[in-house]
Amino acid sequence: MTETVLDYMTRLGRAAREASRQLARASTAQRNHALLAAAEALDAEREALLQANQLDLQAGRKNGLDEAMLDRLALTPARIDDMIEGLRQVAALPDPIGEIRDMRYMPSGIQVGKMRVALGVIGIIYESRPNVTIDAASLCLKSGNATILRGGSEAIHSNQAIARCVQQGIAAAGLPAAVVQVVETTDRAAVGALISMPEYVDVIVPRGGKSLIERISREARVPVIKHLDGVCHVYIDQAADLDKAVRVADNAKTQRYAPCNTMETLLVHRAIAARVLPPLGEIYQTKGVELRGCAATRELLGSAVLAASEDDWFAEYNAPILAIRIVDSLEAAIEHINHYGSQHTDAIITENFSDARRFLAEVDSSSVMVNASTRFADGFEYGLGAEIGISTDKLHARGPVGLHGLTSEKYVVFGDGHVRS
Amino acid sequence: MTETVLDYMTRLGRAAREASRQLARASTAQRNHALLAAAEALDAEREALLQANQLDLQAGRKNGLDEAMLDRLALTPARIDDMIEGLRQVAALPDPIGEIRDMRYMPSGIQVGKMRVALGVIGIIYESRPNVTIDAASLCLKSGNATILRGGSEAIHSNQAIARCVQQGIAAAGLPAAVVQVVETTDRAAVGALISMPEYVDVIVPRGGKSLIERISREARVPVIKHLDGVCHVYIDQAADLDKAVRVADNAKTQRYAPCNTMETLLVHRAIAARVLPPLGEIYQTKGVELRGCAATRELLGSAVLAASEDDWFAEYNAPILAIRIVDSLEAAIEHINHYGSQHTDAIITENFSDARRFLAEVDSSSVMVNASTRFADGFEYGLGAEIGISTDKLHARGPVGLHGLTSEKYVVFGDGHVRS
Repeated sequence: MTETVLDYMTRLGRAAREASRQLARASTAQRNHALLAAAEALDAEREALLQANQLDLQAGRKNGLDEAMLDRLALTPARIDDMIEGLRQVAALPDPIGEIRDMRYMPSGIQVGKMRVALGVIGIIYESRPNVTIDAASLCLKSGNATILRGGSEAIHSNQAIARCVQQGIAAAGLPAAVVQVVETTDRAAVGALISMPEYVDVIVPRGGKSLIERISREARVPVIKHLDGVCHVYIDQAADLDKAVRVADNAKTQRYAPCNTMETLLVHRAIAARVLPPLGEIYQTKGVELRGCAATRELLGSAVLAASEDDWFAEYNAPILAIRIVDSLEAAIEHINHYGSQHTDAIITENFSDARRFLAEVDSSSVMVNASTRFADGFEYGLGAEIGISTDKLHARGPVGLHGLTSEKYVVFGDGHVRS
Repeated sequence: MTETVLDYMTRLGRAAREASRQLARASTAQRNHALLAAAEALDAEREALLQANQLDLQAGRKNGLDEAMLDRLALTPARIDDMIEGLRQVAALPDPIGEIRDMRYMPSGIQVGKMRVALGVIGIIYESRPNVTIDAASLCLKSGNATILRGGSEAIHSNQAIARCVQQGIAAAGLPAAVVQVVETTDRAAVGALISMPEYVDVIVPRGGKSLIERISREARVPVIKHLDGVCHVYIDQAADLDKAVRVADNAKTQRYAPCNTMETLLVHRAIAARVLPPLGEIYQTKGVELRGCAATRELLGSAVLAASEDDWFAEYNAPILAIRIVDSLEAAIEHINHYGSQHTDAIITENFSDARRFLAEVDSSSVMVNASTRFADGFEYGLGAEIGISTDKLHARGPVGLHGLTSEKYVVFGDGHVRS
C-alpha cells in the first residue's frame, strides 16, 4: 500500500473512535444481536475457518514454529464450537452499560450518582491463539467498546477469517463495521502506532508472553491493563487443617502446571512443617514435581529436594517445579509474599480467624484466598461470565477482568434548575 | 549533598513502599489520630507557619512572581483555619479501607467478593498553593497510602513547615515518618525520578497548570490520575424551561470565572434561541462577559457579540469570555460536545425526558448533568467529603476524585479446603 503504517493505523483509530460513538447509541438488544449473528456466521463458515487456519499452520511449520506454538495456533471443530459457545455466553450476560446507581440527594438539592459507560476504544495486542479474536471482540462489543485487534502475524489468515464472521454479525445488527477492526498489516510498526494514539485509543490490553507485555508497558502512551507474572503462593499456617492443607497445596501446584494462577512457592509454618511436608513431598514426587527447598525443608524431606536459590523465590516456573520455604511466623510469610510475589494470587490455609483476617488485610495481591486453591483465580470461577485477562495492576481493575473492567463510571447529576451559591 | 537526586528519590521511594506496608496494618483509629494530631500541631505552630511563608513570599517577590501567584502562595490565619478544618473533616469521613462487599457463593462452593485496599504509594506533584500539602497528605493518609509530596520550589519553606506539623501527627499516632515525605530538593530532576519508579510509586497525581500535567503524562512510567482541560458546556434544549435555562447558564458562567467546571461554551437549540438568548445576553453584558458567537447568535444579539472562530469552540478561557453557538438539534449539541469538549462536565437544560436520557447516555464526559449548573462538579458538592482533584481520564476514576479514587479493590476468596477440578 502507498499509505504508511502510521497513516493506516490513524485511519483505523479515527474510524474506531467514530464507531464507538455510534455504539454508545446502540441498544442492549442490538449488541446481543451482533454477538449471536456472529456465532451463526462462525457455524456457517467452519470450512473456510479451517482452510484459513491451514494456511497459517503450513506457514508456521515452514517457519519452524515449535509444537506448542502450532498447537496454540490450530483451529479444530471443537475449538470452533468453543468460540460459538463463548459468543452465546457473552450475549447472555447482563448488560453492564447504562447501569445507574447510588443517586443520592445532596444538601444543595442536586441528586448525584454514577452511570456505567464504555471506555471507548480498546486495542488488543495478542499472540498466536486465534480464539482471542472472538474473546476480545465479543467482550468489547458487549461492553460497548470499539476494538482494534492486532493478532500475531503467524495467525493472520485465521484471524481475518474469524473477523469476517464477526463482521457478518455486526452488519446483521446494523452496527458500523469499524466497531471491530483487525489490523491487516503484519508490520511491527503497527503495534507502535496503536499504543501511541491516546486521542483514538483509550486502553490497551496485551495478551501474550512477558517480553511482549513488558515492551508494550514501557512504550505505551495509552493506559495498559496488563498481566505480568503469576508468582503465586500457598501459605500453610500453624493452625491449618492438615487435610485441607494437603488437598489445596496439591491442587494449586499439580492441577495444571502452565497457568498463571498455579502455585510456584509453598510456604509452611515451622510448627506444622514436620506433619504436612512429608505427605505433600510424597505427592509431589509421585507426580514428578521437582522440589527446591530452603535448608529446613531439605533437612525434613532429604536430599531429593534441591537447594533453592534466591532466584527461586522470584521464579514463575510454569512447570512441574516447586519452591518450598519454611517460615517462622505468619508475619514472615506475608513479608515473603509481598517481597518475592507478583501481587497475583496468594492463599493461606488456616483455621485461625485472626490469622486469616490478617493475611487478607496485609497480602497485597489481586486475589487473596483462605482455604482455597489459587487455581480458582479466574473470571469464570469468580462468576464474571468471561474474562479478557487477569490484571496485576493496582489502578482500575485488579485480578480477573470481565465486562466491568472494560467500563468505567461517570457522574450523573439531576437538578431542577439548581445553581451553585 | 553528595547523594545524587536519583539516589535520594530512590531512598524516598523505598522508604515510602516500606511505610505503606506498615500503614496496611494501621487501624482506622490510628490513621484518624494522626490526622487530628496534625490539626493540633498546625494550630500550635501558626506563628512558625506564617514566618516560613514569609520567606517564600519574600523570595517570590524578589523573583518577580505576579500577584495571582503570590496570592496562591500566601498563608493567612484564615487559610490555616481551613487546613485545620480540612484535617478534621477528613478524619471524620468513613474509612474506605478494608470494606468487603458482595461475598457471593459460586457453583464450585467458594465464596468470592471484593475488599477495598489502598493503592500503596502516591506521588503528588503540585505548584504554589501550600494547602495542597495538607489536602494531599490527609487524603492519602486516610486512604492508607504513603505519600511523596513534591511541591513547587516557590513554596518550599511553607511546605516544609506544614510537613513538620504532619510529622508531629504521624509520630503521635505511632506511625512511621515515611508515611508522608516531602521532597526537600528543588532540583527538577526529582520530578523525573518520581514519575519513573513504578517499583516504589503506584500512581502520580499532578496538580497544577496544563503544561506541567502534559509533561508529566507524557513522561511518566507510573500511572497518572490527571485533570487536563475543563471545556464545559451548557446545552439549552428546545424543551428547556426558560427560567431554569437562564438561571443555570448565568450561574455556570458567572458564579466564578477561573474554575475548571465553569461553562466555556453555551449551546442553544435554534427553536428556543430567540427567547432565551436576549435575556441571557443582557445578563452577560451587564456582568462584563465578552461574548463570541456563531453567525446565528450574532444575528440575534447584534454586533456586540464578536465572531467566534473554530479555536473558540476548543477554548478554556478561565475568564469572563463565553462562546455561544446555536445548533439545529440535540444530536448536533451532543456531537459538538464530544468533538470540542474535554470530557469534563456538561449539562442539558430540558423538561423533555427522552432528550435528557439521550444526553446522559451519549455525552462522553466525567460529569453529565440535567437542569443543574456545571459548577456543581466538585468532590464536596458530590458528597465525597474531600477531593484530591478532578480526573478527565477514563480509566480508574472519572470526575471528582475523593478517597475511593485513591483505593482499589482486590478479590477475596473464602473456601473450606476447596480445590479446582
